[in-house]
This record gives sequence, structure tokens and C-alpha cells, in this order.
Amino acid sequence: MNRLFLPEHAAVEQSLRGLALAHPHLIRLHQQPLYITARHRHAARRVGLVSGGGSGHEPLHCGFVGQGMLDAAVPGRVFASPHNRQVYEASRAAAGPDGVLHIVKNYTGDRINFRIAAERLRADGIAVRRVLVDDDIATDSAETATGRRGTAATVTVEKLLGAAADQGTRLDDLAALGTHIASASRSIAVAARAQTAPFRGGEAFQLTDGTLEYGVGIHGERAASTEADTGFEPLVDRMTQQVLAALPPDTARVLVLVGGLGATTLLELYAVYTQVCARLAEDGVDVAGRLVGTFAPALDMSGFSLSLTAMHDTWIDLWNSPTRTPAFPVTEFPR
Amino acid sequence: MNRLFLPEHAAVEQSLRGLALAHPHLIRLHQQPLYITARHRHAARRVGLVSGGGSGHEPLHCGFVGQGMLDAAVPGRVFASPHNRQVYEASRAAAGPDGVLHIVKNYTGDRINFRIAAERLRADGIAVRRVLVDDDIATDSAETATGRRGTAATVTVEKLLGAAADQGTRLDDLAALGTHIASASRSIAVAARAQTAPFRGGEAFQLTDGTLEYGVGIHGERAASTEADTGFEPLVDRMTQQVLAALPPDTARVLVLVGGLGATTLLELYAVYTQVCARLAEDGVDVAGRLVGTFAPALDMSGFSLSLTAMHDTWIDLWNSPTRTPAFPVTEFPR
Repeated sequence: MNRLFLPEHAAVEQSLRGLALAHPHLIRLHQQPLYITARHRHAARRVGLVSGGGSGHEPLHCGFVGQGMLDAAVPGRVFASPHNRQVYEASRAAAGPDGVLHIVKNYTGDRINFRIAAERLRADGIAVRRVLVDDDIATDSAETATGRRGTAATVTVEKLLGAAADQGTRLDDLAALGTHIASASRSIAVAARAQTAPFRGGEAFQLTDGTLEYGVGIHGERAASTEADTGFEPLVDRMTQQVLAALPPDTARVLVLVGGLGATTLLELYAVYTQVCARLAEDGVDVAGRLVGTFAPALDMSGFSLSLTAMHDTWIDLWNSPTRTPAFPVTEFPR
Repeated sequence: MNRLFLPEHAAVEQSLRGLALAHPHLIRLHQQPLYITARHRHAARRVGLVSGGGSGHEPLHCGFVGQGMLDAAVPGRVFASPHNRQVYEASRAAAGPDGVLHIVKNYTGDRINFRIAAERLRADGIAVRRVLVDDDIATDSAETATGRRGTAATVTVEKLLGAAADQGTRLDDLAALGTHIASASRSIAVAARAQTAPFRGGEAFQLTDGTLEYGVGIHGERAASTEADTGFEPLVDRMTQQVLAALPPDTARVLVLVGGLGATTLLELYAVYTQVCARLAEDGVDVAGRLVGTFAPALDMSGFSLSLTAMHDTWIDLWNSPTRTPAFPVTEFPR
């Protein structure tokens, strides 16, 4: 029976201490309440970018604090929303002359805590806008009042908004851009094995041999149905076509994010990327950028997600602009 | 029962196609035989740096091809040595005016295939030297004729030698430096769950609940003994003290590499790093650099390794010099 090496909630704080110790030139740890801020802010940046959410999805979000991405990130306990006081204090620390933009994954707890913090910030005279990320098409149903879940496309939103913020974009324009990016981004995820249950150990849910959880969530939310595994190429083709079909009908170029859910190897993830590219080429869709790796996992789940963003021409330079954060990969072209 | 999404050997080629598709400005894929070369070479570099080994340890080695690290990397099948013809062709493609330096992890198959390739290269008039990496103290026994295994410290050797090569260091000096770095580097690894067996699926070996494989290898080689798990802090303290004790006795500053073995989360790995730092501080040992993440895993094993390198003063600038590879993280200080 697998278990995590550090099951208890103290793991989050100990882990963030390590993140700050390992990247002292990029980020700073704040305790009581717990959050991370960037050491440096681009001189042109007018808006503080703040994100956050439950832990267990590392490097999301704290690994994306730094130059070219977030000004602050707020971690909850594993799979639990951060407290609104954390969001409030982090936002005060990160606010720019134009205020703060909150990047929020669509979960009820996150929405509530970011909303309460926003009300307090506004009472302090700090302007706040919100971008809600809701990319997961597995939860795209008229029957679900809460709407689609926010998953891996959050990384894309954080990267593109970070680059735009460094160009001095104003709060309202940045919020509109973020909402545009979120609306142009859709994802689907599949699992072959659940993540380890943090406290009791063992798999959080059981899959029968030869089945896949198609449409799994990043907290181990079960899919609508568990399905027979029909093989690698049909699986990736189906994911690609489903996500593509959820984008605007005139989509000609996309950003591709192949995201590991925790235990799936880079060997597999890059093979997925090859198959996604083949499928997109058949459909006449160009790849304008890509990210392959583990960026928003569900602890140590075995599985992967595919996120596509219908790319506006002006977003490509934002994507390729440099970052300095603990976890975002080198994106610059050779010098 | 967990299984890999792409169990068959074709996965390696499909994965490398994806790596090259995702990083077209950094690397180039060669097929028949299979290897990866860097798109660009520093003008001062006189020696081609070539590494390789079995697949299943991604991003090692192909993810470290590019500016500031390797000129070429050669992948075998999963957990199997590359063929000497791959090493030979990759070395011919990567050779500089001073020849080629092979960075080889200490496994019999790798040693043999790199040696055969070196003989052929010398017959062609290309100078070749070798750096053997043998950092794993779990296999440090007078009874083992093959010597210590090469594991995660290979990443450290590749990074430091890449930076030195970019300074125009000559072949003999580069080989001596690499051997010095390897001799100053030691590692230990622990697992809570075996990796997935690539073809049959399921765990490659079984651990009883509450036990750890202390001294596991990156191909799932069992440790000398399976031990009761006595908790997180005692485990990390023991690893730190054992590795430190295997370094030169006057070691005052170290490079720390906390390496995931596949399924272990960044949440856990950074918590390990915090504990390692606390232990080193008690022993009066400074941390001169660090790397925390999954760089040389054993497929999707649940576990982690600790590598320490006794840092020579002149190696710190090498460590902090910039790279442009698919997988090595941003190391530069803020500009």
C-alpha cells in the first residue's frame, strides 16, 4: 500500500519553507498567514497577480511566483481552499498601483475565499478583479450548477497574464484578457490509478484492471463513467478531438499543454504530445506553443491531462517571453 | 493494478519525437540510430559532451541536451543500455576540435557499449575520454566487483561539465574535472512503492505496508534490506548523515540534489529539502547550490534520492551559469 512520505498537514508549511530556501533570489515565504511573494516586480507592472488554491498540485501555484508570472500565491491544505485571510494578506502585499487581479480555479471554496478577500481589499481602497478558470470539459454539463472545474489551463492563464502585466497592462484590460484566455482554454484528464489518499494511505479510489477514469478531476473526483482502456492512440485522439471541439469553431492555432497528474512519466507525456501533434496536423490546426510536464497534478495520480488554448496572434509573444520562477521551464529561444 | 500508458518499446522513439517537436530550437532528433543532438554549440566549446543510458529516467539524459549542458545524448530502451552504434554516431556528430567526453553511469552494459564506441572513435582519429559516475553508496561494498551504481549525481556532473566546456576547457582537463566532481558526489535513495513493471504492469516488486526500501536502485534494484519506516525526520536525517559521511572529511559546503524517483510529489521533495538543510546546518555544512525535482527517476517509483557534492569554490559559478535545455530549470539569478 503506497503512502506519502509526509502525510500530515504540516507538510505544506515544511514544503514551502523548502521552496523558499531553494529559491531565495526569486521568492519570499510569509508565515501567519502562509503565502509566497515574488522578490522582484517588473518596473512596468501596474497590477499584482495573485493566485492560489489547495495544495497537492505542485508546482501550481507557488512554483509560478516570480518574474513574468505571479506576484503572490496562497496555498491551502492538501486539496482544500486557502483561508480568505491568506488571500487578503497576500493581495495587500502584492498589490500594484492599479490593484490586484485574482486568478481563481473554479471550485466553490476557492471562489468564496477569494470573494471575501476581495471585499475586504475593496474596503481598504484596493481595486480587485477576478479571472475564473473553468477549463475542464468533463464537468461541462447544463445540469451542474457550479460549472466546469478549473484545472491545468490555469498555468497557461498565469503565464500569459504575467507577461501582459509586465507590459504595463491596466487592471480592467488584464482582467478582460484573462477571461478571454480562460474562455479559449479547455481540458480533459484521464487516470489509470488514483492518487494516494494523504492520511490513510493506499489509493484514494480503486480502478479495475484494464479500465481508465476518463474525465477525472485533479482532486481525484471520479469521472461520470469508468471506461475500458482501448489503447493509447485512440485515447489521445479522442481527448484531442473532444477538447478541440470545445474551442471556438474557427480555431486555427493552439497552445498545447500535456500535463502529468503526478506519477505519469515524461517518457509517456512526450509520447502523448507526439500523438496530439499528429492528430492536430490531420485537423489542420497549428501548434503555436506547448508545455509538456507535470505542472498541476493530483498528488501522485497516474494519468495525464490535455489542455488546448485557441491562440490569439498577440498571445504568442506573451507565451515566449522569459520567466524567472521556481518551476516554469526555460521558454526563451536560444540567444 | 497500475500500468504505463505506453508499455511497448516504441514508446522511447515516440517520446523522443515529442521531445524534439516540443523543443525545436534547442535539440534535433536523429533516427537510425536513435540519438539527440544540440542545435547550438558555444563558440568556445572544444569538446563534445555525450551521455546516455537506458530510458525510464527522463528527463535524464536527452532532456539535458542543449546550451550549457550536453551536445548529444543516447537513449537505450527502458532500463537497457544504448547500442554502441548509437554512442558512436552521436559522438561523431557531437565531437569538437578536442574530441569527445563520455559521461557514463556505472552499469556494465553502459560501460561496455561506451567503450566499444570509444574504440571505434579512436580508430577514426577522434580523441575520447570518459567520466564514470558512481555515486550510489547503497552499492558501496568491497564485495561488489562492479562498484557503486551511477544515479542522480549524473545530473550534477552534466551541468558542471557543460559550463566548463563552454569556457573552452580542453579534453584532458574536462575529464579530470568530471572525475573530480564524480568522486566528490554521493547519493542514497529510498522507495515506498516500486515502479510499474513496463510490460506486465503492476508493481515491479512488492513492499509490505510500513516498510521502506532503503538503498533502492533507479531500475528497481532491491536494497540489501527492507526496513521498517521510522518516520520522515529520522529517515531524512539518516540519509543526510550517511551521504555526508561518504564525502571527503573536510567538506564545508555542498550542492544538494533532492531527486524524485517518479511518483513522489514536489510537495514532499521540498519538505525533504527543508529537512536536509536543517540537518546540514546542525553539522555546520553550507549549501552552495541545490536542485529539487524529478531529474533521474526510476519510471514512476514512489521514493526519492539525496545526492550531495562536496563543492570546490570554482564549481559554484559553473553551477549558476545559464542553460538552455528542455529540462534543466532556470538557474540564473534575477537580471
